[in-house]
Amino acid sequence: MLPAAVEIVEVGPREGFQFEGIGRPDAITVADKIRLIDALGATGVRTMQIVSFVHPKQVPQMADAERILDALVPVPGIRYTGISLNDVGLKRLAASPKLTMIPELVLSASEAFALRNQKRDLAEDADAARRMGDTYRALGRPVTVGNIMAAFGCNDEGPIALGRVLERADILCDIAAATGGRLELLNLADTMGWADPGLVQRSVRALRARWPSMRIGLHLHDTRGLAVANVYAALEEGIDRFETAIGGLGGCPFAGNAGAAGNVATEEVAFLCQRLGVATGLDLDALLSAAAVAEAVVGHGLASRLARSGLPASAKASAAAGAL
Amino acid sequence: MLPAAVEIVEVGPREGFQFEGIGRPDAITVADKIRLIDALGATGVRTMQIVSFVHPKQVPQMADAERILDALVPVPGIRYTGISLNDVGLKRLAASPKLTMIPELVLSASEAFALRNQKRDLAEDADAARRMGDTYRALGRPVTVGNIMAAFGCNDEGPIALGRVLERADILCDIAAATGGRLELLNLADTMGWADPGLVQRSVRALRARWPSMRIGLHLHDTRGLAVANVYAALEEGIDRFETAIGGLGGCPFAGNAGAAGNVATEEVAFLCQRLGVATGLDLDALLSAAAVAEAVVGHGLASRLARSGLPASAKASAAAGAL
Repeated sequence: MLPAAVEIVEVGPREGFQFEGIGRPDAITVADKIRLIDALGATGVRTMQIVSFVHPKQVPQMADAERILDALVPVPGIRYTGISLNDVGLKRLAASPKLTMIPELVLSASEAFALRNQKRDLAEDADAARRMGDTYRALGRPVTVGNIMAAFGCNDEGPIALGRVLERADILCDIAAATGGRLELLNLADTMGWADPGLVQRSVRALRARWPSMRIGLHLHDTRGLAVANVYAALEEGIDRFETAIGGLGGCPFAGNAGAAGNVATEEVAFLCQRLGVATGLDLDALLSAAAVAEAVVGHGLASRLARSGLPASAKASAAAGAL
Repeated sequence: MLPAAVEIVEVGPREGFQFEGIGRPDAITVADKIRLIDALGATGVRTMQIVSFVHPKQVPQMADAERILDALVPVPGIRYTGISLNDVGLKRLAASPKLTMIPELVLSASEAFALRNQKRDLAEDADAARRMGDTYRALGRPVTVGNIMAAFGCNDEGPIALGRVLERADILCDIAAATGGRLELLNLADTMGWADPGLVQRSVRALRARWPSMRIGLHLHDTRGLAVANVYAALEEGIDRFETAIGGLGGCPFAGNAGAAGNVATEEVAFLCQRLGVATGLDLDALLSAAAVAEAVVGHGLASRLARSGLPASAKASAAAGAL
């Protein structure tokens, strides 16, 4: 049963700038980053993830996070967000008045990925999340959102057992409770493109069986071409929240796969939804314009097929009607 | 209910050479075409469409069809096929001893596409198919296969009503009967990338309601990024025959959309099937090798994401196990 409406969260600026700047941290100017964020601001999107607060030695291309925020002129009604993977980053995030803080935690389902990405094993990964929980509690913000990276598989570790995902979700629930909160939303991230429609279906059903009232979201990468099919399988399960990137920006600099395609493209997910009669609130023409800006800003073509071919005539005519 | 096994018919050589050669008919040598056909011959594929017999003025890059066939050393057990859209082409096809003739007809569901592509309206399109039926009958080959182009929509005509598809299928059934045959297989071609998972589902169900015992196949283009999702929706309906192109070669030179991506990539469909436990008989490593040959032969990158990123480790290990 398809949902009537879905929430599409734009993560292209954060994912894109992080990935595109590897080895050339100044390749994209702050002005160009703002140009893309502004183009996305005209698409109808309600939540946009624009920066990450990570150590500048680890991700030098994100060292300009505060400068991006200084330059940003927020569009009323849009939530601009950032991510942090530890309590140091969280304090930078909390100090940014133009950002909406989402009280969220991140865990990896893959130990190999956590070791490569964060230099910590699964226990240390959980400890770091507990410290972040303490920080949220000190800020008076009970945790309500959890994210599990590499939830479907890992290039270093191989397939991830569903039991591992449930264990990590359990830990997230415990930490949220310790902050006085409750996990209302759990996002599963297919960080390295291991998901398939059957695995999406099984994962969603297993989580629902355990936590019937918890909302589940997906963050998908199109590394191996299955991401849009995975979105469709998720829609069939009633999933109504997706994190996507304009033009298919992104990819993961730590995933050990330099040829990887980026996130599933926002405009392809929005187009799929429009065709299925699922409301997104997004304007497809504005999304294609923003995808063109994304390609101009990064200086090369992106993976989105829709951005290259354009909308079919009937979709153009009904693009406005598809809005919420 | 997913099928236990599917037939994946490789159309990359025919589609790819047709599209890649526009404006530069000699860009790909016969030797390079044979190189790709040979690479595909090692993938486990059972049927491969390698040439089309069309007028050399209309498609100069296919004028070398007979030279390709002269150079071909067939792999035992593989059916090499060609297509023709009129009785002149069919006679060339029938004169090619290395090809297996499929007694098939082609109709367009879009009048605008038939006019652009074939310079004929829908009635004339049906008349041409009747003449082909006469030729098949004269050859002693009753027609058993039908193809409907632009079955989901057309860049010039817009959406195609399902009633039109049923009408065209009716005509194909009548012509097949007039040749002493019966339509056992009907392929729906999404020539310009208008299909979506919901439309695939509705189309398949409507055809099944009318012709319960007729097999339905799909020929999908990934113009707007939904092709793999469309394959998944079709698998859920039990569809067990797909025409695909290695690397995502192809696109339609007559579709009026020069930026269009090509056919759905063979390796992405095979990977999807492997992940879902649906047997294809194809070797994923050999498919990725053939995709690399395809990119070398055409001289540029192709749209396949899997070809760029490679198989996940576990898929490599079980690639052989996925074989029929």
